[in-house]
Amino acid sequence: MKKDAAQPAKGADWDCPVVYRAIGHVENDFDQPLPPSVIRAGASRIVLDPSLVVGLQGLEPGRRLVVVFCFHRSQGFELLQHPRGDRSRPQRGVFALRSPRRPNPIGVTEVELVEIVGNVLHVRGLDAIDGTPVLDLKPA
Amino acid sequence: MKKDAAQPAKGADWDCPVVYRAIGHVENDFDQPLPPSVIRAGASRIVLDPSLVVGLQGLEPGRRLVVVFCFHRSQGFELLQHPRGDRSRPQRGVFALRSPRRPNPIGVTEVELVEIVGNVLHVRGLDAIDGTPVLDLKPA
Repeated sequence: MKKDAAQPAKGADWDCPVVYRAIGHVENDFDQPLPPSVIRAGASRIVLDPSLVVGLQGLEPGRRLVVVFCFHRSQGFELLQHPRGDRSRPQRGVFALRSPRRPNPIGVTEVELVEIVGNVLHVRGLDAIDGTPVLDLKPA
Repeated sequence: MKKDAAQPAKGADWDCPVVYRAIGHVENDFDQPLPPSVIRAGASRIVLDPSLVVGLQGLEPGRRLVVVFCFHRSQGFELLQHPRGDRSRPQRGVFALRSPRRPNPIGVTEVELVEIVGNVLHVRGLDAIDGTPVLDLKPA
């Protein structure tokens, strides 16, 4: 049976706010937002908090990783946005886009793990700028 | 040139804590943790905060979505864990596992969008239990 539309989102205040702390940060040559494809093409390093290095055990180069990060430069959001800010393209809902301007500015990108050196993960395919706080790493 | 190991994670306190609010919650028949494959096999609903429904524009049934959620029952973490809590399997680092017991208890799962009815998304393939706060939805 279909539920009615517009029922209250009872979960919305149960466990909120949800507070996370960065486990590390991104370092690369991109200190300003650029098209994601440009940033992804470059090499990035994820510098993990040294206290968490044991948590990398079992990750092997060549593995694909999911990187969860905070769009720390993003402020505010719109529910409808032009894709990539291109006003020639029709607006879409924010949940149908990967725009950083979202209700919770969380980024999720799958990357290739190239090498681990101490607490530094060298990765390819990350579209986060220099200084981005990293919240989680998971196997893809 | 390789960077030295164990350099300080200078980003770790820059922008922290990171605070998010649930945009909705999960409803399904699973109110206790079970193996992810069991929960994924069932149907789930994501009940979105009604004020955000416009943000769904452009999402079509059949589309694959990335659901970002909070493991709200998880408390604490270990850097080394037995996969699925199975003590017969060797321990691995938490970042090589999808365990909910992680430094930031964030879940990321790709699901199939079956139908949208008002502010309710019917999905298949979600491995989050009933009541789970949802933080973000993105196109896969």
